[in-house]
Amino acid sequence: MPRRRVREWGIRVGTLPPGRFNHLVDVPGVSVGHVTLWEGDAVRTGVTAILPHGGNWFREKVPAAAFVLNGFGKTVGLVQVKELGLLEGPILLTNTFGVAAALEGALRYMLAENPDLGEAWGSINLVVAECNDSWLHDMRGLHVRPEHAMAAIAKARAALPLLADDAPLEPGAAARRAEALQEGAVGAGTGMVAFGWKGGIGSASRRIAAGGQTFHVGVLALCNFGRREDLIVSGVPVGRLVHGPDDGAREGDAPIGSAGVEADGERGSVIVVVATDAPLLSRQLRRVAKRAALGLARVGGYAYHGSGDIVLAFSTGLRVAASPSSEASWLSLTVWRDDDPAMNALFRAAVEATEEAVLNALFVAETVTGKGGRVAHALPAERVAAYWHALFGGKADPDLV
Amino acid sequence: MPRRRVREWGIRVGTLPPGRFNHLVDVPGVSVGHVTLWEGDAVRTGVTAILPHGGNWFREKVPAAAFVLNGFGKTVGLVQVKELGLLEGPILLTNTFGVAAALEGALRYMLAENPDLGEAWGSINLVVAECNDSWLHDMRGLHVRPEHAMAAIAKARAALPLLADDAPLEPGAAARRAEALQEGAVGAGTGMVAFGWKGGIGSASRRIAAGGQTFHVGVLALCNFGRREDLIVSGVPVGRLVHGPDDGAREGDAPIGSAGVEADGERGSVIVVVATDAPLLSRQLRRVAKRAALGLARVGGYAYHGSGDIVLAFSTGLRVAASPSSEASWLSLTVWRDDDPAMNALFRAAVEATEEAVLNALFVAETVTGKGGRVAHALPAERVAAYWHALFGGKADPDLV
Amino acid sequence: MPRRRVREWGIRVGTLPPGRFNHLVDVPGVSVGHVTLWEGDAVRTGVTAILPHGGNWFREKVPAAAFVLNGFGKTVGLVQVKELGLLEGPILLTNTFGVAAALEGALRYMLAENPDLGEAWGSINLVVAECNDSWLHDMRGLHVRPEHAMAAIAKARAALPLLADDAPLEPGAAARRAEALQEGAVGAGTGMVAFGWKGGIGSASRRIAAGGQTFHVGVLALCNFGRREDLIVSGVPVGRLVHGPDDGAREGDAPIGSAGVEADGERGSVIVVVATDAPLLSRQLRRVAKRAALGLARVGGYAYHGSGDIVLAFSTGLRVAASPSSEASWLSLTVWRDDDPAMNALFRAAVEATEEAVLNALFVAETVTGKGGRVAHALPAERVAAYWHALFGGKADPDLV
Amino acid sequence: MPRRRVREWGIRVGTLPPGRFNHLVDVPGVSVGHVTLWEGDAVRTGVTAILPHGGNWFREKVPAAAFVLNGFGKTVGLVQVKELGLLEGPILLTNTFGVAAALEGALRYMLAENPDLGEAWGSINLVVAECNDSWLHDMRGLHVRPEHAMAAIAKARAALPLLADDAPLEPGAAARRAEALQEGAVGAGTGMVAFGWKGGIGSASRRIAAGGQTFHVGVLALCNFGRREDLIVSGVPVGRLVHGPDDGAREGDAPIGSAGVEADGERGSVIVVVATDAPLLSRQLRRVAKRAALGLARVGGYAYHGSGDIVLAFSTGLRVAASPSSEASWLSLTVWRDDDPAMNALFRAAVEATEEAVLNALFVAETVTGKGGRVAHALPAERVAAYWHALFGGKADPDLV
Repeated sequence: MPRRRVREWGIRVGTLPPGRFNHLVDVPGVSVGHVTLWEGDAVRTGVTAILPHGGNWFREKVPAAAFVLNGFGKTVGLVQVKELGLLEGPILLTNTFGVAAALEGALRYMLAENPDLGEAWGSINLVVAECNDSWLHDMRGLHVRPEHAMAAIAKARAALPLLADDAPLEPGAAARRAEALQEGAVGAGTGMVAFGWKGGIGSASRRIAAGGQTFHVGVLALCNFGRREDLIVSGVPVGRLVHGPDDGAREGDAPIGSAGVEADGERGSVIVVVATDAPLLSRQLRRVAKRAALGLARVGGYAYHGSGDIVLAFSTGLRVAASPSSEASWLSLTVWRDDDPAMNALFRAAVEATEEAVLNALFVAETVTGKGGRVAHALPAERVAAYWHALFGGKADPDLV
Repeated sequence: MPRRRVREWGIRVGTLPPGRFNHLVDVPGVSVGHVTLWEGDAVRTGVTAILPHGGNWFREKVPAAAFVLNGFGKTVGLVQVKELGLLEGPILLTNTFGVAAALEGALRYMLAENPDLGEAWGSINLVVAECNDSWLHDMRGLHVRPEHAMAAIAKARAALPLLADDAPLEPGAAARRAEALQEGAVGAGTGMVAFGWKGGIGSASRRIAAGGQTFHVGVLALCNFGRREDLIVSGVPVGRLVHGPDDGAREGDAPIGSAGVEADGERGSVIVVVATDAPLLSRQLRRVAKRAALGLARVGGYAYHGSGDIVLAFSTGLRVAASPSSEASWLSLTVWRDDDPAMNALFRAAVEATEEAVLNALFVAETVTGKGGRVAHALPAERVAAYWHALFGGKADPDLV
Repeated sequence: MPRRRVREWGIRVGTLPPGRFNHLVDVPGVSVGHVTLWEGDAVRTGVTAILPHGGNWFREKVPAAAFVLNGFGKTVGLVQVKELGLLEGPILLTNTFGVAAALEGALRYMLAENPDLGEAWGSINLVVAECNDSWLHDMRGLHVRPEHAMAAIAKARAALPLLADDAPLEPGAAARRAEALQEGAVGAGTGMVAFGWKGGIGSASRRIAAGGQTFHVGVLALCNFGRREDLIVSGVPVGRLVHGPDDGAREGDAPIGSAGVEADGERGSVIVVVATDAPLLSRQLRRVAKRAALGLARVGGYAYHGSGDIVLAFSTGLRVAASPSSEASWLSLTVWRDDDPAMNALFRAAVEATEEAVLNALFVAETVTGKGGRVAHALPAERVAAYWHALFGGKADPDLV
Repeated sequence: MPRRRVREWGIRVGTLPPGRFNHLVDVPGVSVGHVTLWEGDAVRTGVTAILPHGGNWFREKVPAAAFVLNGFGKTVGLVQVKELGLLEGPILLTNTFGVAAALEGALRYMLAENPDLGEAWGSINLVVAECNDSWLHDMRGLHVRPEHAMAAIAKARAALPLLADDAPLEPGAAARRAEALQEGAVGAGTGMVAFGWKGGIGSASRRIAAGGQTFHVGVLALCNFGRREDLIVSGVPVGRLVHGPDDGAREGDAPIGSAGVEADGERGSVIVVVATDAPLLSRQLRRVAKRAALGLARVGGYAYHGSGDIVLAFSTGLRVAASPSSEASWLSLTVWRDDDPAMNALFRAAVEATEEAVLNALFVAETVTGKGGRVAHALPAERVAAYWHALFGGKADPDLV
């Protein structure tokens, strides 16, 4: 039986309506590409690329910001994001030891696309974030190579037209579109573990109304954090209800709940990427990024010492054109007021979409066996859903959840 | 019927054991004093003082840090706390327009206690934090005066010996001790509103074991934040279950759930003070402070735009003696390792104690009528507890909650 | 002989042209008011108010930012400035123990001007910065009262029309205008000491061209920092040339160069306020504020441990109207590009104007005798100028300085 | 004639005494290795490695901090340095597009040295900083490869024993030691340009006394910043005195002072690495790092928009042993008090050593012809020294400089 997303189990998360795909790519122009590396017994990793729009990112930058909930992490590129408040390339996610290769790949991609980069134009700031997948994956093998990052970017680029409302639906295109929407053990999420279960990529989105228009908040989370006992599914502390794997441990498996996966749970990390088409400045996006951290708390995140819990946020609602000349010296920006009530809806959307994105990673990811025969079991979604409905279903006000 | 704390309703919050009083003052040496101003129809405010220890705070400083989840706030003193990582006086809480008066009062107190301050010794950094109680209170009246801050400090000082394990228990002392432990509409909490109900002061604590010793994490929260529909009580989204006041609206009352209290909910603030006797540096305390923000998320905090959500943390486990001479040029410090597993327990304790402190504020606070006849109703605790038990009681594993 | 500003001695500082008054108020709309407290032998202090424009600051906020070079200081209001990037009231400068009183005064002023503040409108964030004048002044006496802050604001307001290009020049107006332009031992600068000499208020400005328009950068510095031997006057290390006071020590004076003034030099502070009419966002103003710190380095600032070295920057080139309703939900902003070459000119202007503002404080301040008969001597400007010209005059390229 | 360091021209910088080599490596245990890439007409780049001590850096971490004066830069590794305050590997410097390769090289080096890294031990945080050398170098060619970083680390390791006080002095060793002490167009500095002249690597150090002991502050700067007209040599604004190259422009050269090198001057960057054996915490090192920025101001740095001006600081005076077990849960640290007078000496040392390090880069670097025949001329040191002595020599007090 194919895995279902949390909402497909009848479990509602928050109150705001999701976007078309309930995915990061519901923010118009944003696309995602995954390259999955799965070889032999111990290669379980990959690269995920997130593109802010379909143009030339270096020539059309977008506002961006970051919030570091816990800085036990190796994310690259935040110094310049903080100074200038702009994103000027793709965001890449991969494993901790793959950061250099992904950075090199992104650089090569940008050099190829911008022949004057490093000549008339000095330099480019690239963002790469990571989690440590060494519990399942041979991270020391340095299997991620620059070409994987380049391929992930290219896949994301190719996916973009397929994500449009009026995109053609012939089978090939639909399959390729589905690939961009994949969750769980895919791309950078291939070898990740979360809350003692198989984790990885999860996504969700929310729609909000402001000034007669509809805006979107999309989240993609790379989930490699949390201890089993901590997991909360939309209010239900299932971490303390569901103790073991669905399918029983095979002999020889690392014991479930053992020091292995548990210690990993305290060491793991989570990267949250928030996109919105609401026109926001970097300062405002940092506010949004902080709210994503509150969404992590709602699924049971404690930001343990060894966890790199980092939120990146960008807005597609503003573009800052690069200009080598001094011709265009002024920027005219129309942005949301901080005190507009829609800002609170936006904050709420960031919390909810982060919460649901993490849950989607867990609900969708299938069991993965990796390095040394270790098994990261799929969350027993049916049991979890049953618990959830036993608690909330029918008991409460129909408006409860 | 006297109000009961959340735990007295059989509602468990988190998994770690609380300290003796389940209160900030369980951290040895820490004490609290409240001065409540309640006059006529519209004065509903006060000052709360928190002392890091029973000595001379200027001469024996303690490590401290802050985390600003949302900086729509007027907290005073954070510049120097960040630079030097030390707290050298009391922490005062009051209403937004009372900050200057409380600062002046704290200054006068310190000047009286330290005759060389401003002479041989240059200056002192004082910390005052605030929430806006103008929904119930005539904040424009500037009713908080310096002497109220001085009195709150004096009361906290007087309470300290009564909080010791072996403190005498004659009736007068017991009553005075109870005063220091008060929650709800007391001190700075007198006029505060939270989640559409009467809020104010709440507190909780946790014990953790490390290296054969027991350490404490105590939290005191000044709660003036949150929208009614957002409230979560230990996993149960009661905000969407419990729509109106317990006792029915009286005629002439501001309607419950009206724009008034709701808008206020989005504008309100929360100050969280975290104390611990674990010996931590300022950098580490900032990590702890960030976790308190996760506790706010667990009760339904979204850090709305107009909310000053600020966490202050200090450790009584280290003392830094002031030294006018250059005699004592070195500091010998024994601190926890960041990677000690106890650090994660400490983080969890900060989350849990923050969550429970906010709930205690709501469960304990009684209905208050204030400015313009506005009524902030007490949380209908019995109904909330019933909902909670209906959901979690007996349904789940006995270990569930 | 009246004291002269550094430029009047033929000493050039930097390369950019100054504004009309070579003063903060050259930024159109900005005004300054000083209240000086000088009583008996030991009251040598005051309050200085800086207004961002002539309207209602709470209803028309301006972008703002701060940079803390060294946070041994008690500046109030920076939490919200960082979060929202706005200034919504005057900036007040005073002595360290006068912060609470100045804050209270500013609050009362704003309450009187905004009857709905604290009612329909929740709160206001006020900025007060300070230096420690206790070497000359009886700081423990708490002589600064709220009404002094209110009076300083009122004086600044009254001065504004006199600063316009076409302002009337009858004698009374000219004198009142001169008062706003005063430097040295005036307002908050009355009791300050810098580089072992009498310090206090200094100001300077620069004009820069961008896109066919002229913009201004104005700086006002409250100077209470630096050791005598460190002073550099536009490249000349006069601190090591000029050892003693001009006029010889009187018997009974605290010896010049003694532990007193010297230790104070290491404990003192400096507040730099930078204003510009270039339309900049908060993030960009923080960049400007950092450059002011480089200006402090150029006069010999080392940011000693006990020095609160804090820069506040604001732009009058953008206004953000407060809006209680949700009618105006969008902000349309036209701002400078970060990569416009004019930005570098602006950075340079901030460095130069800061350097010259500090020098003006020293060149203009006259000898002050204060608490305990202590004497802060005026910088021997004539000797300093002679040294400077001996070194640079005629020796070098005519374009040298 | 071999190039001489600034001090060898009789030009004194500041007042504190330098260490043995007046170089970063005067901090005991610190070593430096340069790999220079110089091929054909257009490869002018390299890698410089800085090691905090001679042991296993991952197993014996040292306190560290950073200060970003201007964040137009791509430095890697600061997120974790900020969170944990530790350096656990070498610091690598290279060109902007070489960051990924240098990061990969450092990772491989650490993996080889630590077989359990990525297994029992999760991850390692590596620091790589950069400047843009594309004015002279074919940066798009990605000539820096991981093995260059590995070789630079290995060279630094090999150099360490030669830097000891009692190191053997046979010719081979002396030459290898000299290599570690090289400045100018070497390692990461090969293609760098500063103040319109050939820049690159410069270094300096200071000794300070505290509590009967001698401590060191060493600085190594990678200099690729500043406009010609801005240069100040120990108080003398030579940038406005010395207009053209020493040796005359060759026909076909890019014109000196042209848009090329000048624009580059505004886009260039500077990385300052500060080391000390004074035992300081991360928070204190950040204070030190901020002072290095003041040293940049003293040579004429304005932190132009396009310049990545970043300071990294670490202390060898404390070691934090990594511990996979929970055996060693406590850290006992003896650190300097912030208010010890020696702290101010340390701050001054950081300013002075930074100032002198930048000057050494300029005084030592020889003319380099690179990409497209562009020439970065050596600073005409003799003329500069003559100007300096004309101004300060004999004119002033013998104690003047």
